[in-house]
Amino acid sequence: MARRVNWGDCDPAGIIYTPRAVDYVVETVEAWYHEVLGTSSAKLNIEEQTGRPTVRFEIDFISALPVDSQIVCELRLERVGRTSLTVQVTAHDGKDKIYFRASMVSCLVEKPAFKPKEFPAEMRERIEAYQAACGDG
Amino acid sequence: MARRVNWGDCDPAGIIYTPRAVDYVVETVEAWYHEVLGTSSAKLNIEEQTGRPTVRFEIDFISALPVDSQIVCELRLERVGRTSLTVQVTAHDGKDKIYFRASMVSCLVEKPAFKPKEFPAEMRERIEAYQAACGDG
Amino acid sequence: MARRVNWGDCDPAGIIYTPRAVDYVVETVEAWYHEVLGTSSAKLNIEEQTGRPTVRFEIDFISALPVDSQIVCELRLERVGRTSLTVQVTAHDGKDKIYFRASMVSCLVEKPAFKPKEFPAEMRERIEAYQAACGDG
Amino acid sequence: MARRVNWGDCDPAGIIYTPRAVDYVVETVEAWYHEVLGTSSAKLNIEEQTGRPTVRFEIDFISALPVDSQIVCELRLERVGRTSLTVQVTAHDGKDKIYFRASMVSCLVEKPAFKPKEFPAEMRERIEAYQAACGDG
Repeated sequence: MARRVNWGDCDPAGIIYTPRAVDYVVETVEAWYHEVLGTSSAKLNIEEQTGRPTVRFEIDFISALPVDSQIVCELRLERVGRTSLTVQVTAHDGKDKIYFRASMVSCLVEKPAFKPKEFPAEMRERIEAYQAACGDG
Repeated sequence: MARRVNWGDCDPAGIIYTPRAVDYVVETVEAWYHEVLGTSSAKLNIEEQTGRPTVRFEIDFISALPVDSQIVCELRLERVGRTSLTVQVTAHDGKDKIYFRASMVSCLVEKPAFKPKEFPAEMRERIEAYQAACGDG
Repeated sequence: MARRVNWGDCDPAGIIYTPRAVDYVVETVEAWYHEVLGTSSAKLNIEEQTGRPTVRFEIDFISALPVDSQIVCELRLERVGRTSLTVQVTAHDGKDKIYFRASMVSCLVEKPAFKPKEFPAEMRERIEAYQAACGDG
Repeated sequence: MARRVNWGDCDPAGIIYTPRAVDYVVETVEAWYHEVLGTSSAKLNIEEQTGRPTVRFEIDFISALPVDSQIVCELRLERVGRTSLTVQVTAHDGKDKIYFRASMVSCLVEKPAFKPKEFPAEMRERIEAYQAACGDG
């Protein structure tokens, strides 16, 4: 997912405001659900009475990311569990400069009890195909 | 820092949207700089040509946090280095229910080079006094 | 509603980023529903199957609002209709300097059809009591 | 500017949260400065010691905009002054359904005095070329 660092995503120091980097990561993951898994948080929650709440999130800021930068947010799978998924999102400049790297664990749950639920077969197949295509299988 | 979970901080699942929890943490830390350290990101950056960029951020989501909840975001110091500070922010219900716990490492730097800088004596004294008052010294 | 202009609410020009001022207004209105009307968007939407979508919003920026400013967001009622409410929120410095002034029209509706609905008697009484207390009745 | 309505842009009612619609408008205007005017808020503010603060913003919400909707934010010029610009941004579904329509007045200023400044010749030419291309000249 390519994007420009917006004016309003930066604080008065002229670099990205920490929570906005988290927005970039979460939006990258949302886009991946749409494009790769063919679903979305809306479908999971509203149509299917499931959800995928974030269980853990961590992010390392490696280089200062200034306003107007063109960046790429790249998604790899770090760990595929039975009911949980750990994705890694790296924001870089398209070459070798890394701005930040985040890792996000979410868990598929049944609502309203928030009980962990195994990935349905089709979702698992798509996850594993992506993993294989990235050479991470 | 007490607050109510705003309508707009929640997603269509009715619970806090992950990046908004990060906003809560970062705003808690900003308020602590104002109230305890007697400074702010604005003073550090604009008046003193320093800054305190986030180096690392991690957060664990422990219980789902629904809209309209009254919560307390409590700040403890996890580690006080020569140039860096690790703060822990726990969001709870004022009793024994914990919603999320975050840890945030920032580093004092000189601008424009972003070179690490030791905490000035007065800032260090205030940090250590807070640490002692929390029983974490 | 008193607040400090947060570091992250400002853009690299060091003044409030336009959409964050809108956040301040909307949060002021939310707080007013809680404190004055004794309800909330959550209660209206989730418990009562109603809602109060924004129909129109306008805001004039009068003075540049810099980071770290202490401001007051004051709510007055501009117009009380049968099903709609126009509130005015003015952000000032507690004295005579006005930063921005916004006007927001929302309409009470029944869901899922989004059909306009008259204010229930108790809500109307509270609205009118507030209006009278402000001398705007 | 085409976009999908993100999960996190919506509130628990499942439709866009008012201030997020304002984000969409402001980001559309930022993208237009980049793509059509060949400049940006960062260039204006940081390199050229000017700025284009928002003077007035208004928005009408016409249809409820649900999560996952694919929308287009279209920018037209409403009024081109000597130092100020009024842009209109309409969010629609690519066909005939309009979700919201906003109008935003900004003024070119010299910093630090925030004194109005006439558009430089090249900027004016690009503005007028866009206006002509839209048939609004």
